[in-house]
Amino acid sequence: MSVTNKRIGIIGGGQLGKMMILEAKRLGFHVIVLDPAADCPCSSVCDELIVASLNDGDAILALAKKVDVVTYEFEHINADALEKAELAGVPVYPSVASLKKIQNKYIQKSVLQEKGIAVPRLSEEFNADFGFPQMFKSKKGGYDGKGNWVIKQKSDIPTDVDGFFEEWVDYELEVSVIACRAINGEVVVYPIGENIHSNSILDTTIVPARIDGQIKIKAMEVANQVMNVFEGVGTFGVEMFVCKNGDVLVNEVAPRPHNSGHYTIEGCFANQFENHIRAIVGLPFGEVSLIYPTVMVNLLGVESDGKANLVGLEEAYKFTPKVNVHIYGKSESKIYRKMGHYTVVDCDLEKAISVAEKLKGIVKVVGVL
Amino acid sequence: MSVTNKRIGIIGGGQLGKMMILEAKRLGFHVIVLDPAADCPCSSVCDELIVASLNDGDAILALAKKVDVVTYEFEHINADALEKAELAGVPVYPSVASLKKIQNKYIQKSVLQEKGIAVPRLSEEFNADFGFPQMFKSKKGGYDGKGNWVIKQKSDIPTDVDGFFEEWVDYELEVSVIACRAINGEVVVYPIGENIHSNSILDTTIVPARIDGQIKIKAMEVANQVMNVFEGVGTFGVEMFVCKNGDVLVNEVAPRPHNSGHYTIEGCFANQFENHIRAIVGLPFGEVSLIYPTVMVNLLGVESDGKANLVGLEEAYKFTPKVNVHIYGKSESKIYRKMGHYTVVDCDLEKAISVAEKLKGIVKVVGVL
Repeated sequence: MSVTNKRIGIIGGGQLGKMMILEAKRLGFHVIVLDPAADCPCSSVCDELIVASLNDGDAILALAKKVDVVTYEFEHINADALEKAELAGVPVYPSVASLKKIQNKYIQKSVLQEKGIAVPRLSEEFNADFGFPQMFKSKKGGYDGKGNWVIKQKSDIPTDVDGFFEEWVDYELEVSVIACRAINGEVVVYPIGENIHSNSILDTTIVPARIDGQIKIKAMEVANQVMNVFEGVGTFGVEMFVCKNGDVLVNEVAPRPHNSGHYTIEGCFANQFENHIRAIVGLPFGEVSLIYPTVMVNLLGVESDGKANLVGLEEAYKFTPKVNVHIYGKSESKIYRKMGHYTVVDCDLEKAISVAEKLKGIVKVVGVL
Repeated sequence: MSVTNKRIGIIGGGQLGKMMILEAKRLGFHVIVLDPAADCPCSSVCDELIVASLNDGDAILALAKKVDVVTYEFEHINADALEKAELAGVPVYPSVASLKKIQNKYIQKSVLQEKGIAVPRLSEEFNADFGFPQMFKSKKGGYDGKGNWVIKQKSDIPTDVDGFFEEWVDYELEVSVIACRAINGEVVVYPIGENIHSNSILDTTIVPARIDGQIKIKAMEVANQVMNVFEGVGTFGVEMFVCKNGDVLVNEVAPRPHNSGHYTIEGCFANQFENHIRAIVGLPFGEVSLIYPTVMVNLLGVESDGKANLVGLEEAYKFTPKVNVHIYGKSESKIYRKMGHYTVVDCDLEKAISVAEKLKGIVKVVGVL
């Protein structure tokens, strides 16, 4: 059988899955997706969509039976069902062992700490040594700032959440590193992106990150170690804090392509989605070096919740030929919902940043009631 | 309505259509395709497939009624039906007027000649002045060398073909230029590709073409003129002969993205398919300059006709991280059938050529009986 005759199953039908499929289709793979929404972003590009909850064990097993390899675009899914698929002989990448460790943020960070990778100090119990403010994080299910609480006094601690405490990190910069690991253990690491968040959601990624070369090397080494600790297969996003003293602390690991790696579509020869697909089907990686400075900006829903309406695309394309806009195809826009993103390239990083900034006033997705 | 809510109809469901869709999907467009084969390359990525002959006027009109704009990936289609769609108010790009002139190669070249664009001498009647060999070409329906005859003596002239005669051009090099024209008349021209054919089918495109800078400028000017002569909207491929004396003669115009422009997927920020989609929905163009030297090689079916089997993909990817392989998804391979292509990039053109050449022995699509 040609490798490209393999059938790929993806759990989760959002934009990450869609961008995986656009790469998989270039090589002719057959792709089946599982998602609760019949009109999810993947629905228009996949070969088959199984409409079911991401926790529906039977549906996950049914998907696994139809394909040669299973992957996922979201980590908060039914890992026990995936384990059954794995035991039944269907490869799951990243492996269920990786996933289970990463799904629980407390275990994720404890494992990293044990392996000597620097993370913020953490504790299952309230730790007065961390002082105030400190963070309280849900062990499971959190993303985009959801499941995180800033604890300014003891009464801020939620009582109904299974979580853990973390010291407050007064970081200078947040960076993330996209890394891919192959089934045979080979690791490639993309250039470091500098992330700017707004309301705890990624707003902008600037590549190359404007940090010292030594810190870059350290961050890339950390990402490499993280991939090996979790024996991750596929593309991972590793978010890190760069502290004022030059320390690099791992903040969070995502066992899938990551929002902060969207810049690789325009910025690199082989993007994070393509290398994810290559990894899970056992193919060697494509080139990951940076072609030119690249800035990615998220298009989050603005103004009001409602039917998605993209505004200013023509103006944005008129403003510069060096921007690409990506629209995920979600029919309903919500404030802060990830509706799309755009990427600006330029040989001059400052120019790319300035153009990306100007486009923020031009192109947007509004909800129409 | 957001521009990206537009519905796009594509006549023809082959690889050119598929690559258009992969770009259209990035912006969230809804795409409906018409093709006679239910398992055509577009079938796995389009939103809807109308299975019908490319000459089926009723089906073409039915498609037009469902969409906001119609385009095509193959020029030998029912232009009269498209004209009815246009009259009914559905925009067709490139326009039917452009298409009708281009469909008939004799008219295509006569129009160019009238407008002062250099083409090989041609004649509807046998012209002894052209000497032997000369070419006889079918006015309609020819592509990839089909519909062309080399006339070495008068008895070689086919008697049952509506064709015309053309002088034999002893060219030094064949080049092609991909150009895009917007509804408002703006034209962008991609870097020139140098084409190497084998059995009258494109084998390799090398970019930048290894020709003198003055000839490049001339070829790009000619492509610009061609776009304006035909008032083409969308991406066109303009094949040209570069003669030993530096003359540039237009050999053929294709009113659609072109095989020789596949290099733009990796070689340029905005590729020929993306700019085609941008053109037909009225969006300004993305950047077309060359990022790095790029070589594209077609994967034509080899060995025998039969079930398509891709061989050597892993070896090719192991050989270099700077190759991308594209597989169109045709289940049946035939000798010389276009099954896919690959693209090699490198900062050094000679290196890219040499790597592309070595990969010819590694990756291939064979037919398995």
